Amino acid sequence: MAMIFCNTLYSSSPSLSPLTSFRTKPSRFSKKLRARVQFRSMEDHDDHLRLKFMEFPYVTATRKQLMVDLMSTLEDRLQSQLLPCNLPPEARSFKNPNGSAEASIHIRSGQKSSPIDFVIGSWIHCTIPNVVSLNITSISAFLNSSTKAPNFVVELIQSSPTSLVLILDLPHRKDLVLNPDYLKEYYQDTNLDSHRQSLLKLPEINPYVSPSLFVRSAFSPAASMLKIDVEEEGTLEEILRDHVSPAAKEVLGVWLERCAVEEEEKRVMGVEEKLELERRDKSFRKKSIEEDLDLQFPRLFGEEVSSRVIHAIKEAFGVL
Amino acid sequence: MAMIFCNTLYSSSPSLSPLTSFRTKPSRFSKKLRARVQFRSMEDHDDHLRLKFMEFPYVTATRKQLMVDLMSTLEDRLQSQLLPCNLPPEARSFKNPNGSAEASIHIRSGQKSSPIDFVIGSWIHCTIPNVVSLNITSISAFLNSSTKAPNFVVELIQSSPTSLVLILDLPHRKDLVLNPDYLKEYYQDTNLDSHRQSLLKLPEINPYVSPSLFVRSAFSPAASMLKIDVEEEGTLEEILRDHVSPAAKEVLGVWLERCAVEEEEKRVMGVEEKLELERRDKSFRKKSIEEDLDLQFPRLFGEEVSSRVIHAIKEAFGVL
Repeated sequence: MAMIFCNTLYSSSPSLSPLTSFRTKPSRFSKKLRARVQFRSMEDHDDHLRLKFMEFPYVTATRKQLMVDLMSTLEDRLQSQLLPCNLPPEARSFKNPNGSAEASIHIRSGQKSSPIDFVIGSWIHCTIPNVVSLNITSISAFLNSSTKAPNFVVELIQSSPTSLVLILDLPHRKDLVLNPDYLKEYYQDTNLDSHRQSLLKLPEINPYVSPSLFVRSAFSPAASMLKIDVEEEGTLEEILRDHVSPAAKEVLGVWLERCAVEEEEKRVMGVEEKLELERRDKSFRKKSIEEDLDLQFPRLFGEEVSSRVIHAIKEAFGVL
Repeated sequence: MAMIFCNTLYSSSPSLSPLTSFRTKPSRFSKKLRARVQFRSMEDHDDHLRLKFMEFPYVTATRKQLMVDLMSTLEDRLQSQLLPCNLPPEARSFKNPNGSAEASIHIRSGQKSSPIDFVIGSWIHCTIPNVVSLNITSISAFLNSSTKAPNFVVELIQSSPTSLVLILDLPHRKDLVLNPDYLKEYYQDTNLDSHRQSLLKLPEINPYVSPSLFVRSAFSPAASMLKIDVEEEGTLEEILRDHVSPAAKEVLGVWLERCAVEEEEKRVMGVEEKLELERRDKSFRKKSIEEDLDLQFPRLFGEEVSSRVIHAIKEAFGVL
């Protein structure tokens, strides 16, 4: 999630005081009734928090529609394979006391029998008056080591009404130089680069190079890492609706058809290969958290909230 | 060598007839005298062919000076570790019958005790009247599996007097996502990206994205893959002299100081790690030849010359 978060925030942004937590008071009901009420309350709370996530409240209608469409497609297609979100509520929706930074995170792990490790969606909003208004919306899907197929990521980072960074990719999980067949199967044969090429035909779109060398290494050579700069906000909406949205949906389609499937030939067979894949996945996840959340979350949400949220994310990522 | 050769040539270029070979006639001298004469003649021939390579005859004075400086630095610094060029003469200098395509290749393998596998320099010139005049000059240095340190490459590809593609890099030999320490040691700590960033400050320089996904994977995230477009040829000379040349020399300096050295901690210790490195190096070299020479050489030099030259290169690359 928010893998290039660190690259878009101003390093000079002021430190923000931590969020006041919103724990519920102890109940006075009987144990049984309390358990039933709690269960119902948890379900309601889960629905409430999912709706809160799906609101994408600080972005334009077109962008919200895109994120909702992508998340709904993912959840609908993988429904039977996904467990409910089990992040603690305080890591699912949180803000800092003055309301200048707010975020929502939605993680659903895959069933043990599924190749899905977890699906994660998030939005982060942060306003520092006269300095920056930052909105990041992001969806990623991570596979487990039963398959070596690529993951999926889409991320939109906007720090002004007329400028937006798009990351759209199926990040590789094997070294592409050592495994040219993998490059062929998932990138050449899927013609993944065509989306990048088509988007680059628009005069408002240019390549985006992340300042982080790790981020550059982690995305595939067919990744759409692009910066969209427009003169009028309406143009950005048009580009999102007519170009980015179809591209993102097609890339997700490729991922659902070709990667998020349990096909025998895609299974990692050797023990060594599986261990190597697990090491690589872990290294990627740890480094993402280290370069991204560890650096930025404390500045935005304060130490206490950050450490609670990052702990929950690390748990879901399997890198605690 | 010429790793992105395939990306700059016009696919519509006409097929060219093969080069007439220049084998010497059988001699009539005594066996001993013949051996001595042959040895002397071989030495002379070697000098002649090295000088021919170092001529870089079809490029501007500034560019020739840069290539000669880089090759001389490499050969001077590694002198005791390098064997003489043992490519067959017909693979060191060759052209097609009508003279529209000409090339020179210079390969020196490292001594067994050295971490250098081989150093390769080349220039390729090709003119198709009213279509294209292409000049590629390239120097690479490959390490063997006694070390995992990166290789070195500099390549200049010019298809018009006012436009040039530069590739300058220390291509990684380990998966950077799996090995973040490697990324730190050779790319972050060396500040390799600073050269790319400095060059990009010039308005005439923009990022270059190779159409080949393999090429994009093979270069490091700090590679200077840049396109220089100028209005007047003189400006290109200035940029080469004042900006590209110092950057290339500094990157070569980093490679000579930090990579082409036999330090115990850089040695690959485990048998498995060494085998993996060998597999990756081999995969890289095979794929480079496949995507590059196998595709383009027959069109330029004809089947016969190409197959002879490619055979000799494969031998030197250890991928026959």
